[in-house]
Amino acid sequence: MPYIQTPDNIPGIRGLMNFRPDAALALNMLAQALLVEDSPLTRGERELIAAFVSNRNECKFCMTSHGAIAAHLPGNDYELVHAVWEDYRKAPVSDKLKSLLHIAGKVQQSGKAVTAADIAAARELGATDLEIHDTVLIAAAFCMFNRYVDGLGATTPDDPAFYDLVGRQRAEEGYLTKSVLMK
Amino acid sequence: MPYIQTPDNIPGIRGLMNFRPDAALALNMLAQALLVEDSPLTRGERELIAAFVSNRNECKFCMTSHGAIAAHLPGNDYELVHAVWEDYRKAPVSDKLKSLLHIAGKVQQSGKAVTAADIAAARELGATDLEIHDTVLIAAAFCMFNRYVDGLGATTPDDPAFYDLVGRQRAEEGYLTKSVLMK
Repeated sequence: MPYIQTPDNIPGIRGLMNFRPDAALALNMLAQALLVEDSPLTRGERELIAAFVSNRNECKFCMTSHGAIAAHLPGNDYELVHAVWEDYRKAPVSDKLKSLLHIAGKVQQSGKAVTAADIAAARELGATDLEIHDTVLIAAAFCMFNRYVDGLGATTPDDPAFYDLVGRQRAEEGYLTKSVLMK
Repeated sequence: MPYIQTPDNIPGIRGLMNFRPDAALALNMLAQALLVEDSPLTRGERELIAAFVSNRNECKFCMTSHGAIAAHLPGNDYELVHAVWEDYRKAPVSDKLKSLLHIAGKVQQSGKAVTAADIAAARELGATDLEIHDTVLIAAAFCMFNRYVDGLGATTPDDPAFYDLVGRQRAEEGYLTKSVLMK
């Protein structure tokens, strides 16, 4: 049971979002811009960053949802997601993505934890300014989404099939779905 | 100097926002919905929550900007903002706002730090579900904004007159200004 009475029984963040449709639209536009729209990082890489930060924040709803979304995107699977959660430095991802996950891990702790050396290391492995910008903002945004969900005690299903379905839907439809836009 | 090359010399978050106008629009819509649009919490109370969380995250740019915005709103002044930073429990704000600042402080640490007892205490002092919702989302959103600004090393002016000017402008104009909408 969430701490506040949501207008229906939709679990997770979407139940909370029904509470304030104007903020919900902005949150979904942000997710769409950062995770779906054109970027030099693939959608799979960006969802891995989101799932990684959510795992560090121990937000079960977000890590499992975005882990499932990441797994449903081209080139990824659940094994890769679990490898990133376990130890991204040993996961089968590019060195550039490892350097970006390192930055995302710093952002999860605090914006001030990121150093010029972290940025320089990513740049040396080929990361562009836009990739660094997007990594920091995705990691920061999930520090928000995770706190929103857990701070209000959102309903967090246990059934893996729920997350697999959500993962497939978001991977196919993105975040600005008809149900969000029609509120 | 920010870690990435922003298209101009605008300091703080607005310089970073020039990097990705679609995300910037969503971020400003979120700020407008949470801090300016109708809410049972006054704009002054909401900006105090924003300034308080930014202070806890030691984000100089955000705490000084939102402290100035809070100070320029009816019923507030700089003395009140400093009292909230110093120790909100002793600040001359309502007991209800103190209970919401307590929740915001928990969210700053982690969404999971918020307990049912924290929520019940706020409710006993008159906080509604919407006030609790908005407090959690404002606190969570500033955990994002603070990380975005510091994680990319945004230019942070030292001159108090800069923040006082920004504070007066945002208090008067809100966040969805012409310069944001025209990008």
